[in-house]
Amino acid sequence: MMMERRKKFLLSESDIPTRWYNITAEMKNKPLPMIHPGTKEPIKAEDLFPIFSEELSRQEVNQTDAWIDIPEVVREKYKIYRPTPLVRATDLERALDTPARIYFKNESVSPVGSHKLNTALPQAYYNKIEGVTNLTTETGAGQWGTALAFAAKTFGIELAVYMVKISYEQKPYRRSLMQTWGAQVIASPSMSTKTGRKIITDTPNYQGSLGTAISEAIELAIQTPNCKYALGSVLNHVSLHQTVIGLEAEKQMEMAGVYPDVVIGCFGGGSNFSGISFPFLRHKIVGKNNCRFVAAEPASCPKLTRGEFKYDFGDESGHTPLIPMYTLGHKFAPANIHAGGLRYHGAGSIVSQLLKDELIEAVSVKQLESFEAGILFAQTEGIVPAPESTHAIAVAIREALKAKEEGTPKTILFNLSGHGLVDMSAYDQYLAGDLTDHEVSDEEIQKFLATK
Amino acid sequence: MMMERRKKFLLSESDIPTRWYNITAEMKNKPLPMIHPGTKEPIKAEDLFPIFSEELSRQEVNQTDAWIDIPEVVREKYKIYRPTPLVRATDLERALDTPARIYFKNESVSPVGSHKLNTALPQAYYNKIEGVTNLTTETGAGQWGTALAFAAKTFGIELAVYMVKISYEQKPYRRSLMQTWGAQVIASPSMSTKTGRKIITDTPNYQGSLGTAISEAIELAIQTPNCKYALGSVLNHVSLHQTVIGLEAEKQMEMAGVYPDVVIGCFGGGSNFSGISFPFLRHKIVGKNNCRFVAAEPASCPKLTRGEFKYDFGDESGHTPLIPMYTLGHKFAPANIHAGGLRYHGAGSIVSQLLKDELIEAVSVKQLESFEAGILFAQTEGIVPAPESTHAIAVAIREALKAKEEGTPKTILFNLSGHGLVDMSAYDQYLAGDLTDHEVSDEEIQKFLATK
Repeated sequence: MMMERRKKFLLSESDIPTRWYNITAEMKNKPLPMIHPGTKEPIKAEDLFPIFSEELSRQEVNQTDAWIDIPEVVREKYKIYRPTPLVRATDLERALDTPARIYFKNESVSPVGSHKLNTALPQAYYNKIEGVTNLTTETGAGQWGTALAFAAKTFGIELAVYMVKISYEQKPYRRSLMQTWGAQVIASPSMSTKTGRKIITDTPNYQGSLGTAISEAIELAIQTPNCKYALGSVLNHVSLHQTVIGLEAEKQMEMAGVYPDVVIGCFGGGSNFSGISFPFLRHKIVGKNNCRFVAAEPASCPKLTRGEFKYDFGDESGHTPLIPMYTLGHKFAPANIHAGGLRYHGAGSIVSQLLKDELIEAVSVKQLESFEAGILFAQTEGIVPAPESTHAIAVAIREALKAKEEGTPKTILFNLSGHGLVDMSAYDQYLAGDLTDHEVSDEEIQKFLATK
Repeated sequence: MMMERRKKFLLSESDIPTRWYNITAEMKNKPLPMIHPGTKEPIKAEDLFPIFSEELSRQEVNQTDAWIDIPEVVREKYKIYRPTPLVRATDLERALDTPARIYFKNESVSPVGSHKLNTALPQAYYNKIEGVTNLTTETGAGQWGTALAFAAKTFGIELAVYMVKISYEQKPYRRSLMQTWGAQVIASPSMSTKTGRKIITDTPNYQGSLGTAISEAIELAIQTPNCKYALGSVLNHVSLHQTVIGLEAEKQMEMAGVYPDVVIGCFGGGSNFSGISFPFLRHKIVGKNNCRFVAAEPASCPKLTRGEFKYDFGDESGHTPLIPMYTLGHKFAPANIHAGGLRYHGAGSIVSQLLKDELIEAVSVKQLESFEAGILFAQTEGIVPAPESTHAIAVAIREALKAKEEGTPKTILFNLSGHGLVDMSAYDQYLAGDLTDHEVSDEEIQKFLATK
């Protein structure tokens, strides 16, 4: 018989954070500002007003206030799924026979299946109270689109989602989810924008990319009255909202009586990694801990481990301001891996600065290793992880096996950003042996970095 | 600004029940015994040993012990997702503008997406400690198969699942889930059993039924060394295990400071309805409350509202003992509605006795009303419900609207048995206007009831 012990560390609703943590206020080296591509001047909040909600624009450039109040109405909506559990992965530990203690923050319990709702709710809310009636956005694998669809419905806003064409076809359940929550979903490239029409004319069978979908969504927002655009990753205000993850996790690790030696998140544009990391990282900045922070990116889209730190556009057509980021070039076309949410050419400016300053680390994971980790996790802890999240699991497993090899205990914390229940076709292909690893050559990276 | 109030009522892991509640021990009119079709003698535990685990067989016929200890190892595994939240459906209440308070027990948070894991874990456990190495089962919509796949993997048992052919083809994600957890999945009817071969030969394009899949699974179990069969509904031991739902809910309603006026569960074979109801019903049996208990069945498979109370087989080919049940006849072929888990011809013997004694009520819900309720629930509470669970939601909405009409408050509790994230094709069809209602004629019911 096993000893009685706690598996989950649960907080009550009154423990839902009342403020988000803005790490830029406490960073010694601030992230460089975004720059206007025409004037070359740093972007001010007002410059973003035509595209984004005004409050979100102010949050985007705020480098002075370390704490930003969460509106009570948003906190009320967070209660649908927050606080999320912190779980000790006891069965995974046993399977690995490791002296390491592995904990994960379970963001998959959100009704949309991922952490994306943490920022979708405040984004929809701020737009609503500013009188915006319509929003546009893009989605790759579909996690962000589903989250914003529910948030927009909640606050009574109409939403149009440009969904990368290959996902639109391969992930019909994500499309159905968005439609169930009342959103309009358009495969991108589409005939509804100038950008889309040009691409379809030039390259009739183009399967779409996140960069193209962003361009289409921004174009539609600009041309529609009372309409703004919303983005689910990369930007500072998105990372800000995601800090509820780490703020809760910090309290829960305290309940568990441990402190992490290493914190791990998968990495697309940076929002879930930022969310789990920043609240712990703030103590490292002032020298109060020596915790490691590891971003886990796919080997086929290695912006952090093999990209260049420079100013680049956030989208393919160059509609966005120039962002200081680790990038593979805004024209980079990643292989069609299943972790669609990680197929983005650049990293947010905060995370990029932190990596440059060696406050965080980055590693890459190949597709087959990530699915192998995902299956082991599903068979031990029960939850089928999203293909994105399997990258964090794979790195947690590497760390746990290293601890075993070295014979030293270690406390590992990773963020389970979402579940994979609507991505089962990916698991099907893995189990059938149909998946392969994709690596990018140095030549290819140099070619895209040089493309204007 | 809204007032701070609690949305979810959460228990800690130490509140996971330590015992299941066996209502038969306290019923004045006990359920009639199962009967051996050959000898016409009441079935004893030993008669079930060839098919089921011995401990499960003993639980099946136990009408004396009101409380059965939950093995510590099972309770440990329950911690993966239990206790599940009790949620106040505040946003649904607002949308209905009702004076009623609506609460739901959220069993969709289980990693397999439904309540089925509550019985899959103890079933796999008891088989394991009795030395069983292989299990067989059937699954309709796939909820039970996925639950048992994870439970079998957890306890190191090989599992073969006969999946109703039409579901196998229409619900590929459920199949993938079972395979991800290591189970072997066979479309039923199959060539692997005598029953299957006969049906395929007689009716080449037969799309399968739960009754046929049960017959195949039992046949394989009997012919395989060290192999037993497991069932996910209908039987007494299954309802027993599901009482963890109601036992937790009772504590949580107390936390919320309310007592239900009406308790609602959707109804297939009876396990989730029993699970939420019996712990509250035990007080009604002794006259301590006057709560109503409502089973919500599909209009296309109306065993409770239009069936007959009699002895009938549990499967199509007559492999099982005769069960005292409300039934539409074991050859009944229900319309192909999306709530696949409710497409079963009969009701468990406990629930049947309770209905006969008017301790519970039954109502039927048409498919379109159920999906309309599901969409409203998704758009307000965020969770996309399983097509099965939408039947309970529809009846909760009826009760809430009645309260509004009458201008009286009322406390409604229903069980959200599962989420619909792997059933999105059903929502797709509903939103496209492709679904219809299916009603059964009296003639049809009489015909099937008369079929031997």
